[in-house]
Amino acid sequence: MEKLVPSLLLKALGQRIRELRTAQGFSQEAFADKCGVHRTFMGTVERGESNLSFQNIFKVATTLGVSLSTLFQNLEQSVEELSAQAGANKSKKRTVESKS
Amino acid sequence: MEKLVPSLLLKALGQRIRELRTAQGFSQEAFADKCGVHRTFMGTVERGESNLSFQNIFKVATTLGVSLSTLFQNLEQSVEELSAQAGANKSKKRTVESKS
Repeated sequence: MEKLVPSLLLKALGQRIRELRTAQGFSQEAFADKCGVHRTFMGTVERGESNLSFQNIFKVATTLGVSLSTLFQNLEQSVEELSAQAGANKSKKRTVESKS
Repeated sequence: MEKLVPSLLLKALGQRIRELRTAQGFSQEAFADKCGVHRTFMGTVERGESNLSFQNIFKVATTLGVSLSTLFQNLEQSVEELSAQAGANKSKKRTVESKS
């Protein structure tokens, strides 16, 4: 799984953060403000485009009112799911390509 | 607690990593090699001097064979303990100073 890290792990974390944020009724802008980071940075985090630092991860968890452990709960499983989806899309694409 | 982050949170994470690493019989050098980071960087991580990135945190967890959630289990509690220790040392220092 380690090789999947760069994109899928960040993507899974971004999705988790977005889920928790929206569940609490925060807009992305309001949430970024509360975390003390720039809104565009929070956008890149939620899209899995930023490799955020431990301190920023902690800011996010604190603002969401969850422990770090909770923030990361089953994240590896989400990565596996994203990986399976990516694989399915790839083979779907291959099928379409081979048909054309 | 948020204000304690910069030093104590990194220190708590560094201690956790060191505990898990030594429990598994890794030398710091061998562990750094296995994680794919420089040994001196791992030293700064374990001393709580480096604000490591999410990807490096994941490398550490994977090398230790633990989930991210397990790596962060009760980390907030460790921070509270370190904070209490720091407070106790400070007041001890103050007592010593007021006696001299």
